[in-house]
Amino acid sequence: MISAATNRSDTPTSDADGTGGKRVAVVLCGCGRADGSEIHESVSVLIALAQHGATYRCFAPDRNQAEVVNHLTGEVVPNERRNCLVEAARIARGAISPLSELRESEFDAVIFPGGFGAAKNLCTFAKQGAQMSVSDDVAAVIRGFHNAGKAVGLVCIAPVMGAKVLGTNNGGPGCEVTIGIEQGPGGKGGVSAAIESWGSVSVPKRVEEAHVDTKRKVYSAPAYMDDGATPAQVFAGISAMVKAMLGK
Amino acid sequence: MISAATNRSDTPTSDADGTGGKRVAVVLCGCGRADGSEIHESVSVLIALAQHGATYRCFAPDRNQAEVVNHLTGEVVPNERRNCLVEAARIARGAISPLSELRESEFDAVIFPGGFGAAKNLCTFAKQGAQMSVSDDVAAVIRGFHNAGKAVGLVCIAPVMGAKVLGTNNGGPGCEVTIGIEQGPGGKGGVSAAIESWGSVSVPKRVEEAHVDTKRKVYSAPAYMDDGATPAQVFAGISAMVKAMLGK
Repeated sequence: MISAATNRSDTPTSDADGTGGKRVAVVLCGCGRADGSEIHESVSVLIALAQHGATYRCFAPDRNQAEVVNHLTGEVVPNERRNCLVEAARIARGAISPLSELRESEFDAVIFPGGFGAAKNLCTFAKQGAQMSVSDDVAAVIRGFHNAGKAVGLVCIAPVMGAKVLGTNNGGPGCEVTIGIEQGPGGKGGVSAAIESWGSVSVPKRVEEAHVDTKRKVYSAPAYMDDGATPAQVFAGISAMVKAMLGK
Repeated sequence: MISAATNRSDTPTSDADGTGGKRVAVVLCGCGRADGSEIHESVSVLIALAQHGATYRCFAPDRNQAEVVNHLTGEVVPNERRNCLVEAARIARGAISPLSELRESEFDAVIFPGGFGAAKNLCTFAKQGAQMSVSDDVAAVIRGFHNAGKAVGLVCIAPVMGAKVLGTNNGGPGCEVTIGIEQGPGGKGGVSAAIESWGSVSVPKRVEEAHVDTKRKVYSAPAYMDDGATPAQVFAGISAMVKAMLGK
């Protein structure tokens, strides 16, 4: 009765109607907070982009997730493999491309939603903390957009990737990001310490807020770094970030 | 560095703070438009509920999905099995219970997001159209809330379940629902014909709108029945539905 899903794009990246809407690349890495992209955050990004007249295209690395987690029990599922791109296609409704096909020249900005997947599949922060490395393809995207003077948006735990890639210890300018308010002096804890060890700056913000580093065009929102936040609070903070990125 | 997901509920069903917020059950059935709950629709429901002061609890049947679809290619994956409850826990961030534990007495309203999963896992509409049956557990939930005079919300293709269970041909009062604007005379096509064959009424509405059947307390929104809709349009229609259900 109803046909199967097709791999169509209902949100073209081109500005076909000539309204001057910004084109934004969204980088996902699976589908689910514990092993992929956090779903509420990812959808909040897409809703906010569409609300403010931007078009988007989703991307994800065409490789296996670091692990598969049963989200009912919180346990890792041994021997199960899921692909970041195939699972992220659930969030993107099939309209997604391999991260290797992301060309900075075709977009005005890039956004990385959070979730543990960002810290497991796109970098090694979940396992290695301050000693982590960022995947080469992801680092190239962040550096490419930054070097072209374009906006980079980072949600939840994803700001660690921008802080590392653009950190002064990595030959970058350093950047300011928020990963929310941690337990610790001045709202800074272990994640902030890692960020600052790379030569970037952690700026504590509430979940409904975004932080804007105007000089480096780096935008961030805490989202579910505040574990007790509601979906409405997460949406509010991400909307603030997206609006700032689009100059609204 | 970062601990695994835990099965906590950040959105308690009790009205602990005494603000009188409505308690809403949300029934999911997997995670993804082609074989489970449509993700944008489900998250839009949760954001809108939280924005308007309601608390929610998610539920899903603890049984295998009818099938698993690769959302990148749109093809069915042979021999793969995924459980409706375990996958829906991705959308619910672990805060979900088996549908068998849903007690109508603990909630003020129930909402069913759409997606092909609603037509495959909760009823047989995807395969059988007008000859479909609704799963006993789902039919009992719809009938239970309706008989208690409580609101029933149905998104996208999910309205067929309310139209069937509450249809005059099924001993019900009949109800009005929207499944959007179909191709056909007056915006009605094959799905509307099925709905009306059961003794309910299809009311064509745009994606940004909701339809309210005040008398039967049945609320519906077209969402991705309009396949070319943007996430912002889907969110607008679902927000209108949720606001009407909460009396806002």
